[in-house]
Amino acid sequence: MARLAIPLFPGFMPLDAIGPYDVLRFLPDTEAVFVAAEAGPVRGSGGLTLHADAALDDVDSCDILLIPGGGGTRDYEGLKPLIEWIGRMHATSAWTTSVCTGSLLLGAAGVLDGLDATTHWGAVADLEAFGARYTPERIVRRGKVVTSAGVSSGIDMALTLVELIAGAEYAQSVQLWIEYDPQPPHDTGSVAKAGPELTRRTRELLGAAARPE
Amino acid sequence: MARLAIPLFPGFMPLDAIGPYDVLRFLPDTEAVFVAAEAGPVRGSGGLTLHADAALDDVDSCDILLIPGGGGTRDYEGLKPLIEWIGRMHATSAWTTSVCTGSLLLGAAGVLDGLDATTHWGAVADLEAFGARYTPERIVRRGKVVTSAGVSSGIDMALTLVELIAGAEYAQSVQLWIEYDPQPPHDTGSVAKAGPELTRRTRELLGAAARPE
Repeated sequence: MARLAIPLFPGFMPLDAIGPYDVLRFLPDTEAVFVAAEAGPVRGSGGLTLHADAALDDVDSCDILLIPGGGGTRDYEGLKPLIEWIGRMHATSAWTTSVCTGSLLLGAAGVLDGLDATTHWGAVADLEAFGARYTPERIVRRGKVVTSAGVSSGIDMALTLVELIAGAEYAQSVQLWIEYDPQPPHDTGSVAKAGPELTRRTRELLGAAARPE
Repeated sequence: MARLAIPLFPGFMPLDAIGPYDVLRFLPDTEAVFVAAEAGPVRGSGGLTLHADAALDDVDSCDILLIPGGGGTRDYEGLKPLIEWIGRMHATSAWTTSVCTGSLLLGAAGVLDGLDATTHWGAVADLEAFGARYTPERIVRRGKVVTSAGVSSGIDMALTLVELIAGAEYAQSVQLWIEYDPQPPHDTGSVAKAGPELTRRTRELLGAAARPE
């Protein structure tokens, strides 16, 4: 049985974790485990509470490591045990992945030093501070390290992983099962498409709301 | 303060709930509340546990009602209190919405009788059994009732709702914040695109895995 481990921490972004969870859990012979400093409730952005199945110390290895982002990622001091755990998981993982600002925790664990990587468009400088080379693509794969852009990109990344692990036909079935035939109402989902004025306004409007409470 | 109410039940599909949650919670002056038979942990498909903030009896009205789907929806007898609650919420809601097979609970509450509606492609007959007219579109809006297709369609529906409630510019910002610029690896996200052979295989392969445990 392969293990998918998803760490949670105060102020994680719920969709960063749950988008890929609801894709990767369909992999054959795979069990998902949510991990946190302690087993039990963890409060994410917006106030949602998700249950961690296990404490960090209870999980000593995993096949797929998936780090969600969220405003809470910036508490590097408070997250020191998690960051050390990420380093340990990465040593033997088959895939080490992040969604959104989850990449900052990979960076803090030393995984991205000198590596091409991506993150949420609002966190580029934070990522580069860890020695990563920011690459403005939706999914950046370098060996076993796969980083993805903001929030919703985790779904695309997870489908890509399903294909790498279980093949294209299987990935097509998972995509059909979650009926992933996106029809966004606007074409403003990236900084390149939205342009500088909408990007500036969005940062002002929503940057604060995305922080942990 | 407007209230977004999302009911949970055993075997709900996590992404059905969390996709729209992580879009709609950015609406101005809106609080999200997860509701269940009792406040506390609720186990969804795949084993994930989300905490309900409130019991059904604690919530007597809401502005936006959002019903997730999942294998657990078919337990109409066990979900009788939830189905009655849905009827009460719908009486005064501004928007009554569903994702995936959440439409079956709207149907069981009598909301869809004679109405155009959509659902997961694997649940068309279940939907029609409630007198709904199945409409194979990703989002079907009839007055204040908005149903969406399988799982990931809830993100598109939520962005549409944000636009209806807070305007196009605001919706564009939310879309940019969650970096929703989808790049699915394949073009197999709907039955029309996947074709009958992949659809048949997918139903065999994943239908069972999507049921509650």
